[in-house]
Amino acid sequence: MENKFLIKKSALRKVKTGKGVTIIQPSNLYECRLGNNCFVGPFTEIQKGVVIGDNCRIQSHSFICELVTIGNNCFIGHGVMFINDTFSDGKPSAGNQSKWKKTIIGNNVSVGSNATILPVNICDNVVIGAGAVVTKNINRKGVYAGNPAKRLPQKSK
Amino acid sequence: MENKFLIKKSALRKVKTGKGVTIIQPSNLYECRLGNNCFVGPFTEIQKGVVIGDNCRIQSHSFICELVTIGNNCFIGHGVMFINDTFSDGKPSAGNQSKWKKTIIGNNVSVGSNATILPVNICDNVVIGAGAVVTKNINRKGVYAGNPAKRLPQKSK
Amino acid sequence: MENKFLIKKSALRKVKTGKGVTIIQPSNLYECRLGNNCFVGPFTEIQKGVVIGDNCRIQSHSFICELVTIGNNCFIGHGVMFINDTFSDGKPSAGNQSKWKKTIIGNNVSVGSNATILPVNICDNVVIGAGAVVTKNINRKGVYAGNPAKRLPQKSK
Repeated sequence: MENKFLIKKSALRKVKTGKGVTIIQPSNLYECRLGNNCFVGPFTEIQKGVVIGDNCRIQSHSFICELVTIGNNCFIGHGVMFINDTFSDGKPSAGNQSKWKKTIIGNNVSVGSNATILPVNICDNVVIGAGAVVTKNINRKGVYAGNPAKRLPQKSK
Repeated sequence: MENKFLIKKSALRKVKTGKGVTIIQPSNLYECRLGNNCFVGPFTEIQKGVVIGDNCRIQSHSFICELVTIGNNCFIGHGVMFINDTFSDGKPSAGNQSKWKKTIIGNNVSVGSNATILPVNICDNVVIGAGAVVTKNINRKGVYAGNPAKRLPQKSK
Repeated sequence: MENKFLIKKSALRKVKTGKGVTIIQPSNLYECRLGNNCFVGPFTEIQKGVVIGDNCRIQSHSFICELVTIGNNCFIGHGVMFINDTFSDGKPSAGNQSKWKKTIIGNNVSVGSNATILPVNICDNVVIGAGAVVTKNINRKGVYAGNPAKRLPQKSK
């Protein structure tokens, strides 16, 4: 074996933002858009083509892949992983991006830490519990938790 | 859109420690206390006010938020996420820290990798399985696993 | 309390690779081997003695511990954590590595993001779903998901 390999460095590259945005390094953001007043924590990666609205927090250790769109006033907790490739042929699509799928997150959506989001649509005003694995579209506001994530009964106050 | 944003760097800021402590960078620790002989792996964040006892290992990729206290001889695995905000009003408490809740971890507690710890109390001599989501207080020693985490039957030897 | 502690930096140290390997920094790889045409994302740790075959992707935020061997054409998603210490005595084995256990991953295995892999054997041609917790050996090709991970019924096409 040899000992030569290519080393690249995480960077902020071609990131477009609105006003009042803070990004903590090290993080790896490229060719993505963040709205006004967003915060991005350390140890995050946000890939090409991702669009995030205003007043969002993307917390540390999160990964947001290509084909994800996030609305306004959203909170993405720590260690949240988004997914665009569901290995639908029993293996990664690799270069074949026609097999990747979109995720669209509405407004006022809060995703708990360590949650995993398969390629789905999530409507406005949804809470995803910490550690949840979201495998299906969510079309009704409420709180969803578990693996796979299910809607929790509403608490009376 | 503009292209100006504020960049801050992860750092070790106002970290108080006992003797024999090692911290691997990059990591983001601020205004927290670590006891003697602790180890903190890379890609970790430990926030303001966190207190960790002696002889603890905080492994890589873990996030320990404000209002967490950890006893002595504890092992926090890789990718473990602590939580102080349960979105009890259906959204993040944001600036309203009066809604954040404490987590208190006893002595000799071992938390498996990728576990998620909601704001709870965990007594001494507990093992949390890898990938578990702890949603309730744990008052009895033993092994807890699953999402949500439940006590496993004790193995006879 | 004092304020002195030892700071070490993540690095690429004694990494042996085949041809066409790319590694994104910051990452922490030491005394491990990667085959030809591998890619390793940022915020990863790969420990001593790990052997990875040809044409593998190790995505961002993943942690691969000592005693893990991975075959050819494998995809390890984002935030995947491997484990070698099952706390079999109710606590970490600490220095006692005789209690650590091996993980052997075959060829053409794809592990979804945020999955957790206890020390097991996984045969060729397996897909592990995102967020799954694999607690037992997998000897039959197919798709496994959930916590604990179970084999999903095969989809007819």
